[in-house]
Amino acid sequence: MATLGDIGVSALINILTAFAFLLAFALLRIQPVNDRVYFPKWYINGGRTSPRRGGNFVAKFVNLDFKTYLAFLNWMPQALKMSETELINHAGLDSAVFLRIYTLGLKIFVPITVVALVILIPVNVSSGTLFFLRKELVVSDIDKLSISNVPPESTRFFVHIGLEYLFTFWICFMLYKEYDNVATMRLHFLASERIRAEQFTVAVRNVPQIPGHSIADSLDHFFTTNHPDTYLCHQAVYNANKFSRLVRKRDRIQNWLDYNQLKFERNPEKRPTNKIGFLGLWGERVDSIDFYKQQIKEFDKQMELERQKVLKDSKSILPVAFVSFKSRWGAAVCAQTQQSKNPTLWLTDWAPEPRDVYWRNLAIPFVSLTIRKTLISISVFALVFFYMIPIAFVQSLANLEGLERVAPFLRPVIELGFVKSFLQGFLPGLALKIFLYILPTILMIMSKIEGDIAISTLERKASAKYYYFMLVNVFLGSIVTGTAFQQLHSFLHQSPTQIPRTIGVSIPMKATFFITYIMVDGWAGIAGEILRLKPLVIFHLKNMFLVKTERDRERAMNPGSVNYPETLPSLQLYFLLGIVYAVVTPILLPFILVFFAFAYLVYRHQIINVYNPQYESGAAFWPHVHSRIIASLLISQLLLLGLLSTKRAANSTPLLVILPVLTLSFHKYCKSRFEPAFRKYPLEEAMAKDLMDRTTEPDINLKAFLADAYLHPIFRSFEEEELVEVRVDKVRVDKHQTYDEDDQIRDDLSSSSPPHHVHHPSSPPHHSYQPTSVYHHGIAPQYEYNISSPPHYGYHYEAEPWTSRE
Amino acid sequence: MATLGDIGVSALINILTAFAFLLAFALLRIQPVNDRVYFPKWYINGGRTSPRRGGNFVAKFVNLDFKTYLAFLNWMPQALKMSETELINHAGLDSAVFLRIYTLGLKIFVPITVVALVILIPVNVSSGTLFFLRKELVVSDIDKLSISNVPPESTRFFVHIGLEYLFTFWICFMLYKEYDNVATMRLHFLASERIRAEQFTVAVRNVPQIPGHSIADSLDHFFTTNHPDTYLCHQAVYNANKFSRLVRKRDRIQNWLDYNQLKFERNPEKRPTNKIGFLGLWGERVDSIDFYKQQIKEFDKQMELERQKVLKDSKSILPVAFVSFKSRWGAAVCAQTQQSKNPTLWLTDWAPEPRDVYWRNLAIPFVSLTIRKTLISISVFALVFFYMIPIAFVQSLANLEGLERVAPFLRPVIELGFVKSFLQGFLPGLALKIFLYILPTILMIMSKIEGDIAISTLERKASAKYYYFMLVNVFLGSIVTGTAFQQLHSFLHQSPTQIPRTIGVSIPMKATFFITYIMVDGWAGIAGEILRLKPLVIFHLKNMFLVKTERDRERAMNPGSVNYPETLPSLQLYFLLGIVYAVVTPILLPFILVFFAFAYLVYRHQIINVYNPQYESGAAFWPHVHSRIIASLLISQLLLLGLLSTKRAANSTPLLVILPVLTLSFHKYCKSRFEPAFRKYPLEEAMAKDLMDRTTEPDINLKAFLADAYLHPIFRSFEEEELVEVRVDKVRVDKHQTYDEDDQIRDDLSSSSPPHHVHHPSSPPHHSYQPTSVYHHGIAPQYEYNISSPPHYGYHYEAEPWTSRE
Repeated sequence: MATLGDIGVSALINILTAFAFLLAFALLRIQPVNDRVYFPKWYINGGRTSPRRGGNFVAKFVNLDFKTYLAFLNWMPQALKMSETELINHAGLDSAVFLRIYTLGLKIFVPITVVALVILIPVNVSSGTLFFLRKELVVSDIDKLSISNVPPESTRFFVHIGLEYLFTFWICFMLYKEYDNVATMRLHFLASERIRAEQFTVAVRNVPQIPGHSIADSLDHFFTTNHPDTYLCHQAVYNANKFSRLVRKRDRIQNWLDYNQLKFERNPEKRPTNKIGFLGLWGERVDSIDFYKQQIKEFDKQMELERQKVLKDSKSILPVAFVSFKSRWGAAVCAQTQQSKNPTLWLTDWAPEPRDVYWRNLAIPFVSLTIRKTLISISVFALVFFYMIPIAFVQSLANLEGLERVAPFLRPVIELGFVKSFLQGFLPGLALKIFLYILPTILMIMSKIEGDIAISTLERKASAKYYYFMLVNVFLGSIVTGTAFQQLHSFLHQSPTQIPRTIGVSIPMKATFFITYIMVDGWAGIAGEILRLKPLVIFHLKNMFLVKTERDRERAMNPGSVNYPETLPSLQLYFLLGIVYAVVTPILLPFILVFFAFAYLVYRHQIINVYNPQYESGAAFWPHVHSRIIASLLISQLLLLGLLSTKRAANSTPLLVILPVLTLSFHKYCKSRFEPAFRKYPLEEAMAKDLMDRTTEPDINLKAFLADAYLHPIFRSFEEEELVEVRVDKVRVDKHQTYDEDDQIRDDLSSSSPPHHVHHPSSPPHHSYQPTSVYHHGIAPQYEYNISSPPHYGYHYEAEPWTSRE
Repeated sequence: MATLGDIGVSALINILTAFAFLLAFALLRIQPVNDRVYFPKWYINGGRTSPRRGGNFVAKFVNLDFKTYLAFLNWMPQALKMSETELINHAGLDSAVFLRIYTLGLKIFVPITVVALVILIPVNVSSGTLFFLRKELVVSDIDKLSISNVPPESTRFFVHIGLEYLFTFWICFMLYKEYDNVATMRLHFLASERIRAEQFTVAVRNVPQIPGHSIADSLDHFFTTNHPDTYLCHQAVYNANKFSRLVRKRDRIQNWLDYNQLKFERNPEKRPTNKIGFLGLWGERVDSIDFYKQQIKEFDKQMELERQKVLKDSKSILPVAFVSFKSRWGAAVCAQTQQSKNPTLWLTDWAPEPRDVYWRNLAIPFVSLTIRKTLISISVFALVFFYMIPIAFVQSLANLEGLERVAPFLRPVIELGFVKSFLQGFLPGLALKIFLYILPTILMIMSKIEGDIAISTLERKASAKYYYFMLVNVFLGSIVTGTAFQQLHSFLHQSPTQIPRTIGVSIPMKATFFITYIMVDGWAGIAGEILRLKPLVIFHLKNMFLVKTERDRERAMNPGSVNYPETLPSLQLYFLLGIVYAVVTPILLPFILVFFAFAYLVYRHQIINVYNPQYESGAAFWPHVHSRIIASLLISQLLLLGLLSTKRAANSTPLLVILPVLTLSFHKYCKSRFEPAFRKYPLEEAMAKDLMDRTTEPDINLKAFLADAYLHPIFRSFEEEELVEVRVDKVRVDKHQTYDEDDQIRDDLSSSSPPHHVHHPSSPPHHSYQPTSVYHHGIAPQYEYNISSPPHYGYHYEAEPWTSRE
């Protein structure tokens, strides 16, 4: 077991790491050359167009104003300056509420820490009877401050039980206040929004295919019949997945072409060549520029064919549509009611924001959704429970006594004081962190397979999966396998009443492990977050090899957004640790407090200066945050019950049994009181906003506004091309033939649509698209359909982002 | 353990009991004097007004046509004559679908029985190796036919696994077909219904109390704002619980008065007297007729005051209302959407049928509902788990070997062959049945405390509670405690993987117990059901002591309705037994088949001739039936898994693990496919019916029709009085003063309602009520608000039942 000295070494390492990161950040951020990496939000906002400090050539890249180096921590007060209202306007409600989770953590744990340290440490220390436990388990100094130090059958346990009650009430009180706050903020935010497409639109899935009728016909007929007073129009969804795959591939090749052209420009004597075999390792050597140009030409032809197929073929119209209504009330009614006798047809739900739509999943046939969900549930279960084995293995290595027994020849190395401390303090946390690094990607892919159509929902589902993973593997896994790997087997064969005991009794012993985990993952990890090492490197690499114009440079920087699927579960794990250890080993709490405070500062800075949210869900993640903190409370109560029953304080357990019941009732109450605000849209609200609009904006043409709000991003990208065109004004005349082709397609489509098809906005044809082969000065078109680089199309209604970016 | 001989004796006893009941029924039903007990449905329908056989005085009471005695089982073919469509028209969809559960049982179990007997019995018998088990448990002959007889590690277990697969698929297939059928029947039934109040009406709970505004004002304002095109009117709900308590008490006294008056008429020499102390055992002796007349007068005064209070006091208007819409579409929209920002206000849901409303629960404040639900959940849990102790005690008595050990002096008695067989075969089942007798009443009261406002929902909830009880106590309880009561303790301290094993291994041993249970509860119980002993006795007692007129006689017979809270769970238990034992001890199946066939006949007869459904829920109970059969499948798979793992057939278990997953997916699919048909009302359907109405009944005055559809039954009962009045035409003139009082109240009320309160139907006042003291020839008014005697008010729209009854 780790001693206090080990913890000290670990703390030192992690604090040094964190400081190194902060120092690096402080130095890097004031260099003009990194300005786009550390302040991209201001570029997108239009707040900046170039690094603030200009001057001579060197000053363009390196900051020569040495005064700024002195105040290297001045980002911290800066980050706190912006008020919450400004923050909501600047970065959206999601970001503002995300920060509130950290302040909630502080609000919950500051009083708990003070009370626990003041009351429990004296109670635990003065008991001083760990001697009889020494036989079974090696006890560290930390344990002397924990509940382990209290002798069995002591009346002091009533102090712990009393505090568990106090903490539960305090946490529930704070949770209630916060839920109320967030729900009010959400309703206020939704009410203050300007007119937006998703307020009037409902996503309809599983539109039945009636032979002899087009999907558009059925849609119009169904909604004019069943919503005669409110139905406005609908927008068809095309299956353009194959086309977008082609676009993606073409993009990659365009990058290679750009790279080779730049290489050739810098070194005009030697034309770049490459081999065409596997990974460029063998095969015929060809001229790179010609080769890639040829490839791009081929792709353009393929894309042309595919695009024609998509637009002409009625099979590529999916049985999915975005149906718009004349009023918010109409949309709210349609989204909340069942439409058809057959409950698997005409499924309506709120449409996500246009930029939140995950287009690829719209093509998933509805029947396969149940199967997909079942399969993914099974896979998640398998992943959660069988991922445990490698972690347990690594952690059993970190148990040095065990390692020495297995490999006695390592003894001299391990016994070196510093190595030992390092291994014991640092390794378990680090190993776990590496394991967890690739996981979010896998979980996100799993969520995508499940088939939800909004990116926000996908992220929330990935986040839930990650949380289950953390709970079982990081929390329970560490507790059970960490104390003694051998316990695992016996644990599986114990009675249900024995399980909380087994875990409960191990909990105080694992405090040191979790303290190091908090330092590695929390402290150093968050400091790494602010440094943005990966985007920094990628930006400079792109700058070096691909960037030719200012516009390219802009595109080379992907500001990203808060990584909810990874951040939320980690946060919830810290809540869990704090709540579980509050009564058991209160010395852990200050470490968590430092994490919350530090992470709050860092994320506030990042949200203000870096992240550009990809979507706005109106804090739709809050119910999950709330219910997982409640789950943490229940776990802590159960484990304390188990722990106390091993302490033969059995006559006190009835007192603790009441707590979970109370907590669950509280949860149920909160759910019925606040959750509908996050799931439904009350008719009262919809009607009020409708009425307000009628007075403030009586002459808005809703149909024109909604006409192509939900247009597939691929058609959008052509529109963008067009804009570029107009600006640079360098149309190549020799491509006139393709223009004619395009007109041809348009005519085909309009003649193929039935004559009485009045409501259909006929979106794709009316964007006179520019064939992708018409590129000006070789810039990659950067089709913006990729989720990792958010589209920021904005709405037609708010056209500013477009103009500011061109 | 019971031997085959014991089973034989038990079967004989039960068959004889059943035959005795049937014979008694056959004799009693053809006596004219019992005609109202055995054919009440036809009296209510208007099909009969007096017993068919008239003639001389004796023939009025006793059937003298001896030919009819010969064909004493002829009710059976008669019961089968009516087609399902006729049945739906005659008794409603609930009854028709209830009978389908029995045919579903037959459809499922007939093929399973044949296959299981033909394949499994030879497989089990030929193995013949129970010798080594004999050490631990006494084995009966039945066990030789069961899976216990197959030696461990035998490959024959693959036959059992294969059959489990086959049976699961067969059951799922039948369930799917039946769910589909029932859902179609329900939709068809709803679509073919004539115009009905509940189609246009939504129950609104938790209407906020705005100071300075009446509830009626807020309602009108809210719904005219948020449903401007569809809102029609609303009906306030009065808190008349105290008043109806008074009515109930007055009723009891009226009965005593009637009894004493009749006594005096028959024996005019002696005026009846009674003592006024506790239970009439001591205290002053008074003249009964005068005493009760005096009491009734006092009650009338109190009721007068209370009624005035209810109608005048604005506090007695509850924050609950029935809101009606101009179209079904409008009601469907309102019922399915959230109305207000605060999700605990303006809660809308479909209104139950007027006769299905449980008025008393409308007065429950909404805030207390969560608390009530939590408390009841805890109580149900306690009831389910602590009721086990007495049952286990009784059953351990039935274990004769144990009994002899405890009380050796009883040995000579017990060892008498017949006594032993009787005790072992009959006692355990009977003891259990007595225990279960009082339970449904308790569970119904619990459900009422929970606060649902529809009687159908209350019954469904009581039924769910009863099912949990049966599952834990009858099924699991019998299995675990029956084999050896001592196992209970060790069982609680076993690992989770051990539990299915412990239960699984006991299952085959308990087959004999369940066979006797099926015979006692199923065979004899159902035969008792057809005899209707309790209603028969009550009817004749009432006839003797209270009945003076033909109308009284009609009221003396309460036909009742199918006792869903008790019948459904029992049925589901038989499904569970059949499914669990199909593979383990197939010899049990024929007993279940006999039960299903016999019960089907009996209930078909009862539904046609006796029961008068209190409400029509449109087979809303079917999803519960379906999901509980699925639960039975899961339980059977789990227990087979446990059983086989003790047989060291471990390499076959992975095969069985797939089954629960498949079953659960099937359930999930069915739920999403069919359940919405039972919970929601699709807009397509509502619109279609609205359009049809507009063409078929264009001139219906919906407002007048809906005006007092949801009037509190107390105000209805005055209306009924009035009708009686008109018929007998004997108005006592000396009560004119009360008429004036009534007018006074009416004026008060209309002046107290605000002037712009146009939508309010002002229901209570416009029924010019007749004070309850105006009784003609001393008939008790029999206020029809009591749930156990259904009101059958019918609707204003279908006025026939009234006239036929008067």
